[in-house]
Amino acid sequence: MRVGELSRRSGVSVASIKYYLREGLLPAGERTGPNQAAYGDDHLRRLRMIRALIDVGGLSVVATRDVLAAVDDPELPLFVALGRASGTTTAPEPSTDQDEAWEAAERALAAEVDARGWQVSDQNPAWATAVGVLATYARLGDEDLAGQLGLYMTTMEEVAEQEVAAVVDRGDRARTVEGVVVGTVLGDTLLGAVRRLAQQHQSLKLLGETPTHPRG
Amino acid sequence: MRVGELSRRSGVSVASIKYYLREGLLPAGERTGPNQAAYGDDHLRRLRMIRALIDVGGLSVVATRDVLAAVDDPELPLFVALGRASGTTTAPEPSTDQDEAWEAAERALAAEVDARGWQVSDQNPAWATAVGVLATYARLGDEDLAGQLGLYMTTMEEVAEQEVAAVVDRGDRARTVEGVVVGTVLGDTLLGAVRRLAQQHQSLKLLGETPTHPRG
Repeated sequence: MRVGELSRRSGVSVASIKYYLREGLLPAGERTGPNQAAYGDDHLRRLRMIRALIDVGGLSVVATRDVLAAVDDPELPLFVALGRASGTTTAPEPSTDQDEAWEAAERALAAEVDARGWQVSDQNPAWATAVGVLATYARLGDEDLAGQLGLYMTTMEEVAEQEVAAVVDRGDRARTVEGVVVGTVLGDTLLGAVRRLAQQHQSLKLLGETPTHPRG
Repeated sequence: MRVGELSRRSGVSVASIKYYLREGLLPAGERTGPNQAAYGDDHLRRLRMIRALIDVGGLSVVATRDVLAAVDDPELPLFVALGRASGTTTAPEPSTDQDEAWEAAERALAAEVDARGWQVSDQNPAWATAVGVLATYARLGDEDLAGQLGLYMTTMEEVAEQEVAAVVDRGDRARTVEGVVVGTVLGDTLLGAVRRLAQQHQSLKLLGETPTHPRG
């Protein structure tokens, strides 16, 4: 198909398609003339994935390019592809202010990780993010919030087991990596939204207040 | 204390403190002269909270001001304060592209919510966010990822119950609202980081690969 049809079928403007081609997010089409190229279903699929990662997952164009490079590299171990997707957090850079609160938080996290026998690297960007939040709770005097680390670890161990099993089962490596990438990035957004809905439900139950806009 | 000491003790620059005063995030100090004001421990505490919400939680200055206004309003029902904090998502605005995939996703979410007896409003911004992710999975042909909605709801129902109970127990209303706000916003970041660590652990276990940078 020509670029116009690719635009119509994907809902992405021709200008954006040309931008993704220039930035290397979308592979070039097959050249059919001096100013023309033909695109296939693979381009359509890739374009939908780009928009999902940017519009719904909140990734930057640069992060999206890095993650897609992992999808395209058949030699890359699945674990590294997952790591690449995991590195694409939309959370702010953690403070590297390694004071006493930071060191205590890192010891607390390491103790929980070791007690559960988790094999994780402290080079994983999520490590510093978790330590940063725990240190902030301590600086604010909110130690009871830090107490929720164990609850989060217990529930996420179960969630991650099912998430990883679901994508590993796909058989086809390219489809598995796509599932890893989409599931990691968009799953963050979905899980956060479900948490807010669950909090609304539980606070109504516990506080005995009524919703101002019930579903109807 | 003077603004210089407030800056030293909080680690926030005088320029930033003056910006927060102008923008209404930080209440004015007690005027002690034509160009001088005195600040107390409440200011120090508030300043730490502002930095936690902006630097660690990823909120904008405007969202931070809205959330702090909820903390400061003694008449506001706790449920509304929680809703205000819940509205401060760092996720991108969901697409309002209400095609067939969107409608099917909304029916799927409503069915799960009703089956569990959750009392939630479809005016909660998290509702549209969740529907947007589910619709994106469907458009990408990743229906097995959509199948994880039930898993997320089951685990978040338990997590939210303990989260809400932890802050409700504080007795003092101002401290409760502070806990709600900090726990909602920073809890997103912590939960996301723990999920990435759990995924690393589970993918090593399932794929039999070894971490490139084990903790040492």
